[in-house]
Amino acid sequence: MSTRAGRGRRAGGADTRGEILDAARASFAEAGYGGTSIRRVAAAAGVDPSLVHHYFGTKDDLFIAALEMPTDPRRIMAAVAEGDRETVGARLVEAFLDVWDDPDARLRLLAIVRSGVVGEPGRTIVETAMKRLVFGFLVQALGIEDGDRRFSLVASQMAGLVMTRYVLQLEPIASMPREEVVAWVGPTLQRYLTDPTP
Amino acid sequence: MSTRAGRGRRAGGADTRGEILDAARASFAEAGYGGTSIRRVAAAAGVDPSLVHHYFGTKDDLFIAALEMPTDPRRIMAAVAEGDRETVGARLVEAFLDVWDDPDARLRLLAIVRSGVVGEPGRTIVETAMKRLVFGFLVQALGIEDGDRRFSLVASQMAGLVMTRYVLQLEPIASMPREEVVAWVGPTLQRYLTDPTP
Repeated sequence: MSTRAGRGRRAGGADTRGEILDAARASFAEAGYGGTSIRRVAAAAGVDPSLVHHYFGTKDDLFIAALEMPTDPRRIMAAVAEGDRETVGARLVEAFLDVWDDPDARLRLLAIVRSGVVGEPGRTIVETAMKRLVFGFLVQALGIEDGDRRFSLVASQMAGLVMTRYVLQLEPIASMPREEVVAWVGPTLQRYLTDPTP
Repeated sequence: MSTRAGRGRRAGGADTRGEILDAARASFAEAGYGGTSIRRVAAAAGVDPSLVHHYFGTKDDLFIAALEMPTDPRRIMAAVAEGDRETVGARLVEAFLDVWDDPDARLRLLAIVRSGVVGEPGRTIVETAMKRLVFGFLVQALGIEDGDRRFSLVASQMAGLVMTRYVLQLEPIASMPREEVVAWVGPTLQRYLTDPTP
């Protein structure tokens, strides 16, 4: 067979990065975020842990790469957390729309959302990603107590915005100008994030 | 074959109702809500239009039966529309939770939601159902202008509540007591329904 020469070869340098990523995805899926370590991924990929660090950095960096997130949510959330606490809801919607309104990023994000909706372990992985890398950052930076409750409330609005604006493309919210979405949804997130429990 | 005697028989009274329902579902799927009439459904089922009226009542009644809605949304919405305009958001969440927190109703509603998420024509049918039988009723009863915009905003919160509380079962919103969900989400719907455009 003409393809035979390409098969069964132990990957050289060019494929090592991909093999580490495959091992990381398998580990996050099997053992979850908590059960995955750089050491475990390195062992599964048959490489030295220092090489995993070299290619990907920290475990969170590896997690972001494994999910193929279109942008680094920690950088975005750092910008959202900066500034007036009383307008963080609006900044969170703006950051959300910055990413989701971009067609390429949206395709990748929809794939992540789907993997989280279809069943375990995708669900747990996506939930961990949102809690740890997106929302956890904000909770910590703003000193928000009762973070899980507020996370699930914010998620209840944002998941619905994803559904109506991007998946179902329900009009007029699907083509609503960005500023108008921020003006409507910003105060909702603000209340869920910083208002006292009613 | 032992089953042969059961096949090919023109349905008697017992099956007529089911045949009308099948014809109605096919018509709503092919021609949409607007393109479906009692007369068209009757012709497809090979019965007299008066028999469709006899079994199902109006076109809206037939539509509700075809979707197998667990309860009649018009009756529920009539109750939501009654009372103080300033607390309609809370009443809408309460009515929503009354239906969705019931396990049997939830199963049926999830099936409807899925049919609306997967693609056309389910999407259009579910959108029509929500707009016409659930939200349209409220918009009319409360004299709300700009109904489509407010419908899509309310949908952006309610679709997310369905996802987080019932589909993903994200904690703590999945087991949050009903009164707490109403206290958090009620003011959101109130703002989307009756606040001036920001």
